[in-house]
Amino acid sequence: MSRRADGFEAPAVRGLPDGDRVVMGHGAGGRKMHRLIRELFLAEFGNPVLNALGDAAELEPGRGRPAVSTDSYVVQPLFFPGGDIGKLSVCGTVNDLAMAGAVPRWLTVGFILREGLSLAALGRVCRSLAATARAAGVQVVTGDTKVIERGEQEEMYVNTTGVGVIPARLRLGPARVRPGDALVVNGPLGEHEAAIAVARGGYRFRARVKSDCAALPRLCEGLVRAGGVRMMRDPTRGGFATTLNELAEATGLGFIVEEKLVPVSRTVAGVAALLGLDPLYMANEGKVIAVCCPRRADGLVAAARRFATGRQARRVGTVVREPAGVWLRTRLGSLRRLIMLEGEQLPRIC
Amino acid sequence: MSRRADGFEAPAVRGLPDGDRVVMGHGAGGRKMHRLIRELFLAEFGNPVLNALGDAAELEPGRGRPAVSTDSYVVQPLFFPGGDIGKLSVCGTVNDLAMAGAVPRWLTVGFILREGLSLAALGRVCRSLAATARAAGVQVVTGDTKVIERGEQEEMYVNTTGVGVIPARLRLGPARVRPGDALVVNGPLGEHEAAIAVARGGYRFRARVKSDCAALPRLCEGLVRAGGVRMMRDPTRGGFATTLNELAEATGLGFIVEEKLVPVSRTVAGVAALLGLDPLYMANEGKVIAVCCPRRADGLVAAARRFATGRQARRVGTVVREPAGVWLRTRLGSLRRLIMLEGEQLPRIC
Repeated sequence: MSRRADGFEAPAVRGLPDGDRVVMGHGAGGRKMHRLIRELFLAEFGNPVLNALGDAAELEPGRGRPAVSTDSYVVQPLFFPGGDIGKLSVCGTVNDLAMAGAVPRWLTVGFILREGLSLAALGRVCRSLAATARAAGVQVVTGDTKVIERGEQEEMYVNTTGVGVIPARLRLGPARVRPGDALVVNGPLGEHEAAIAVARGGYRFRARVKSDCAALPRLCEGLVRAGGVRMMRDPTRGGFATTLNELAEATGLGFIVEEKLVPVSRTVAGVAALLGLDPLYMANEGKVIAVCCPRRADGLVAAARRFATGRQARRVGTVVREPAGVWLRTRLGSLRRLIMLEGEQLPRIC
Repeated sequence: MSRRADGFEAPAVRGLPDGDRVVMGHGAGGRKMHRLIRELFLAEFGNPVLNALGDAAELEPGRGRPAVSTDSYVVQPLFFPGGDIGKLSVCGTVNDLAMAGAVPRWLTVGFILREGLSLAALGRVCRSLAATARAAGVQVVTGDTKVIERGEQEEMYVNTTGVGVIPARLRLGPARVRPGDALVVNGPLGEHEAAIAVARGGYRFRARVKSDCAALPRLCEGLVRAGGVRMMRDPTRGGFATTLNELAEATGLGFIVEEKLVPVSRTVAGVAALLGLDPLYMANEGKVIAVCCPRRADGLVAAARRFATGRQARRVGTVVREPAGVWLRTRLGSLRRLIMLEGEQLPRIC
């Protein structure tokens, strides 16, 4: 794992004279922690709510129903093609809000840092987190930092909790799904997990695969505006097949996916074949499965394609009353059951 | 990664037939994780909002201003006299909300579990977390679980983010603090850090000291109702002296503390002396510093004493225009400056 250290040997960082690595004192509540907060976190994330540095941050949600979502991120490596733990920590959480139809507004950030993490790496993560938050229209309003003893590698864990607002009249959810509804997905599957697998290395092949890590709130707003959306879910850990199983459980209905319509890039298919993974079970970080009224499916696909994150959107399946569960209609026409992911695939992909 | 499998051959635990330890699969998004969610988390924390298992949880805040606070907990050991990481994860976060005058309502819980953690320990933590949440009047509305590789000891980290509601007319904060204001604290200082220090062991002495870990929202509501409160802060990491330094910075005023009035138990004073710690800088998890109008100070102390968490409340100091900063008036009458905690004291106390 010494390979991990590459890129972290940068010289001591602007404004942080404590040496160039995280020490236990950065989490002890005293002067070192306050300096880190002021010189890094406020510099990167600053806004009037955060700058108040109160025990709690006051929000002004206005109209609509507030919604909240939380996720911790433990991805290894911290930096990977297409993203890093900072970008991921924003995208993963705002996407969960977007799936509920909420417009994400505020974010809390909890860092758990391993002693010995380079401040340069922490700075890079913070800059990426801040830029992704700005682009997604969310403010970091409060945070927390803890430091734990050093481990075998440079590590950090991030928790973000997002608060958003669901437009007053919008109703989405499993209760709205009907037999005959269409399944739409916004692009090719498995890219995030493939990128992490390749970045983690130790393989004899090279593949140019980038994580699909992206913030989806604007795409989801566009889908909702296009009309006909019953519910949305993001197929992250466990992938497309596991998320559809959650939908099948929540609705009690069947989901039939057409193998020939499921978008998987040639590179991801290649990586999956080499590593013995199945793209249908590989994690995504910039994908949404939308269930919609069948008459609106074409309009939804067209609406998605107007967004950078939806260029390759397509209809991939249908909701049926029976058989319940999730089914793949193979290229040969037979139905193959897609069960929920058993056990683990690649650990620490998000 | 084959090492992953060892040590998991122990007999199955009630309702959790995957063996009695956390494995990577518990965080992989598949069937193991879903079983953990249903059989432990929903069983302990269940409520209509959480049970929906949506990507985000919808809240109904009603009137008032929403406030949000986040904290991660990395305390070692996981169980200590007076509490555990589950109880602490609720108290720490609802207390931050209470300091802002908010009534805590909802909690998100993010677990990062180390592979090899016993499911019995996780179950105990969850039961404690659930009981503390119920007692504090907060609902767990959404959560997340990640698993990381095993370390040298059984470990877990918890992030909780709390959302509460500040009554519409309540205004608290540093801008309201005036010279002449009184400082009130609800009981003796340093108990949490002393309890952790002793629990961590390796010392030749024994001391019966319990963490003060407690939820303060009801006490804080009582203080606000009594009238005259300008602002409140909980002296956690860095202790009483560091928190007062934060107040001094935020207000630009001076804070004079009377040494003879500062409450410290004989046991904590003894532990502190043996370990070379200063109770004024030792962490608390059930204490509040209230700054109040001087005419209301006696009423505030009386109001505090009506609560179990405020039985030993007392006035301990005064806000002055000059000198700025934090000062201890010693028993001899001289003023000694209390600076912000430098570096670290005991690591991983919360």
